[in-house]
Amino acid sequence: MSPRLLVVFLLALLPFSSSCRDAQEKDRISRLPGEPNDVSFSHYSGYVTVNESAGRALFYWLTESSQHPESKPLVLWLNGGPGCSSLAYGAAEEIGPFRINPDGKTLYHNPYAWNKLANLLFLESPAGVGFSYSNTTSDLYTAGDQRTAEDAYVFLVKWFERFPQYKHREFYIAGESYAGHYVPQLSQIVHRKNNPAINFKGFIVGNAVIDDYHDFVGLFEYWWTHGLISDLTYHNLRITCEFVSSEHPSPECSKAIEAADKEQGDIDPYSIYTVTCKKEAAALRSRFLRVRHPWMWRAYDPCTERYSGMYFNSPEVQKAMHANTTGLAYPWKTCSDIVGEKWADSPLSMLPIYKELIGAGLRIWVFSGDTDSVVPVTGTRYSIRALKLQPVSKWYPWYDNGQVGGWSQVYKGLTLVTIHGAGHEVPLHRPRRGFLLFQSFLNNKPM
Amino acid sequence: MSPRLLVVFLLALLPFSSSCRDAQEKDRISRLPGEPNDVSFSHYSGYVTVNESAGRALFYWLTESSQHPESKPLVLWLNGGPGCSSLAYGAAEEIGPFRINPDGKTLYHNPYAWNKLANLLFLESPAGVGFSYSNTTSDLYTAGDQRTAEDAYVFLVKWFERFPQYKHREFYIAGESYAGHYVPQLSQIVHRKNNPAINFKGFIVGNAVIDDYHDFVGLFEYWWTHGLISDLTYHNLRITCEFVSSEHPSPECSKAIEAADKEQGDIDPYSIYTVTCKKEAAALRSRFLRVRHPWMWRAYDPCTERYSGMYFNSPEVQKAMHANTTGLAYPWKTCSDIVGEKWADSPLSMLPIYKELIGAGLRIWVFSGDTDSVVPVTGTRYSIRALKLQPVSKWYPWYDNGQVGGWSQVYKGLTLVTIHGAGHEVPLHRPRRGFLLFQSFLNNKPM
Repeated sequence: MSPRLLVVFLLALLPFSSSCRDAQEKDRISRLPGEPNDVSFSHYSGYVTVNESAGRALFYWLTESSQHPESKPLVLWLNGGPGCSSLAYGAAEEIGPFRINPDGKTLYHNPYAWNKLANLLFLESPAGVGFSYSNTTSDLYTAGDQRTAEDAYVFLVKWFERFPQYKHREFYIAGESYAGHYVPQLSQIVHRKNNPAINFKGFIVGNAVIDDYHDFVGLFEYWWTHGLISDLTYHNLRITCEFVSSEHPSPECSKAIEAADKEQGDIDPYSIYTVTCKKEAAALRSRFLRVRHPWMWRAYDPCTERYSGMYFNSPEVQKAMHANTTGLAYPWKTCSDIVGEKWADSPLSMLPIYKELIGAGLRIWVFSGDTDSVVPVTGTRYSIRALKLQPVSKWYPWYDNGQVGGWSQVYKGLTLVTIHGAGHEVPLHRPRRGFLLFQSFLNNKPM
Repeated sequence: MSPRLLVVFLLALLPFSSSCRDAQEKDRISRLPGEPNDVSFSHYSGYVTVNESAGRALFYWLTESSQHPESKPLVLWLNGGPGCSSLAYGAAEEIGPFRINPDGKTLYHNPYAWNKLANLLFLESPAGVGFSYSNTTSDLYTAGDQRTAEDAYVFLVKWFERFPQYKHREFYIAGESYAGHYVPQLSQIVHRKNNPAINFKGFIVGNAVIDDYHDFVGLFEYWWTHGLISDLTYHNLRITCEFVSSEHPSPECSKAIEAADKEQGDIDPYSIYTVTCKKEAAALRSRFLRVRHPWMWRAYDPCTERYSGMYFNSPEVQKAMHANTTGLAYPWKTCSDIVGEKWADSPLSMLPIYKELIGAGLRIWVFSGDTDSVVPVTGTRYSIRALKLQPVSKWYPWYDNGQVGGWSQVYKGLTLVTIHGAGHEVPLHRPRRGFLLFQSFLNNKPM
């Protein structure tokens, strides 16, 4: 190429690449209020408009890998609810690089942050959740599975334009709970669209809503076999809730679930063997006290959810994160009540999507913290059994530091991993075991 | 009464009371090696011969109440196995006044010792278990439920002669695991003999073998719903083990149980969410390290069982406890392999005895630590359901320090209490909750 041609060629590229770089740089977080001194990775956050006419914009936070981000895969993380924020849970409590101190102002490093292994893209989805918003208020009352998936796909395509260095990079989708719907649904769109920029490899979901019938059967059995509910209520649940939508249960089923709630009492349903966030628990937060109260069974603060409410509502934090630029009429919340309660379409089963994507040869892992009574291991087992996959391995215990970390079974097309002693948010309750799981998933090696 | 007559009367009493006092005093423990300085209760231990011709003698340890022993009830505590020592478990790990330090030589106070509420009589039963022995070696190979109960009754009668101050005192029988057989069986004899010296009021059993059919169904369901075994093994267990004796399973059932054992891996089946006694765990024993390893979920040492082997085999300890006076041919062990493996008669169900004793108006409480996979809460629930008792209360959570301590349901004639987060040895894993349970039982008040 002649020098002259080269200049023309470079000039042709310039507007595009510099505008990308500009957009990226505008999203770069220079410093988060209260962050530790030794932050060794780049991170970015901001909005991507997914629907111009309605004014729907989704908020993301990209935390790049702390070592060699350019050679690490990209993982999109979604939390469920529906209506819950991926910043509140995924980023601040589960797999993100920082945890928030009880002061709600300062951060500390998560020693088992998943961005040691991958570049993590947290998305607050759908519009109305966390900092994500819609200028069309009615959108909040009509959110549902389909629009959530479609908006997330638009987000992805536009985000890759803003971060072209991630185009063609190994890409995975991950999440937990009701993201058990979001993750396969978005995966299906990404797979079907076959956009060459998106090098989609597979997905991983934890304590995931998969199939309403099997989830419910497993849920009620879990409650009874873990001693949480009476014989009578168990009987009533089986009679009134089978073949009912978990998002839109019948009045009779709702009544039985209410009775079950009452019988369970004030436990943490997401982690049934840990203490709840109460005055008593709060008083036990210090490490000193924890030693003297052995039933405080791990360095896990049951009040952690409160701190994200303080942190993400701080104007300084919002400014540093380029969040809430439009002046939202409501505070940032861990979960949106409106979105959660008014949820529209929710298909009864993800199993057809599993079948399609297993058939496409994508990597699919399902994990389950086995002390969660909200989307428990029994429901997950029943749902996967319903797929009638061919086992490749037996059910076997996997080990961490000489202790059973959980169990696993590899099937043709799907790997199931349980994490022993972990609740709904696996990486919160068993950070090291969650990290080992993620490592195995990325390496596509059994536990 | 004239002074002269009084003297005659007192002289008539003297031979009896002084011989009792002598026998008691011979059994008094003046000091246990390694005990703390501030021991505030009297304790006694020694042998009671239960069969002269065979030379069977049972070893007991009475730890009187630390406050007003004369007004407190007497509680006989039995451990199961069959073949396991009540010193090893009940006294040293569960409800006794002392726990043994890792050095195997020194003791420390158990802050939730049950002798704060009652006088505790620990019995090593049957002959062949712990320090209890038989001069007829074949006895060890032919032990079974019936002789265990009969010998224990003979022990009781003779023991009350040695400790006449306990005659007519409120008396309860307690125990756990396979003592789920011993306790009701002995209770039945005591009730039927109607010995006026024994003021028998009722019994309490924990994680108790009750009814082989319901225990097995609950056991297998517990294993599967807690993610410990495969779908296939669960299926095989249900097919091969139903209607089989748990002490004498069929070869097919044994094979399925072996497969389940293998799949469960190296967890502690008696407490499925705690660490096992391994090098890694041993290294974490110190309080300092426990703070830094949050998965070490309570001030509970999984290697505790080892220390009793060291302590009770010390010649000084044996001398202080008047134990092993005949020079046993084998060391003191936590559980006797011979007795455990050669167990003879074992009725399939205790439910008929429950019915008889409920009918007699005795106080009967059944408790269950809900993280035990050996005699789990599901089996206990099925067994009690089979009694078809009339509920007096709903299934409800009970609280300790604002946290759910477990659940309870009061029936006409029986109270069921679960202890949340406790394994097979409830007072070891949840000492405070176990203490509250015992207090409620003695006061006959719901949790």
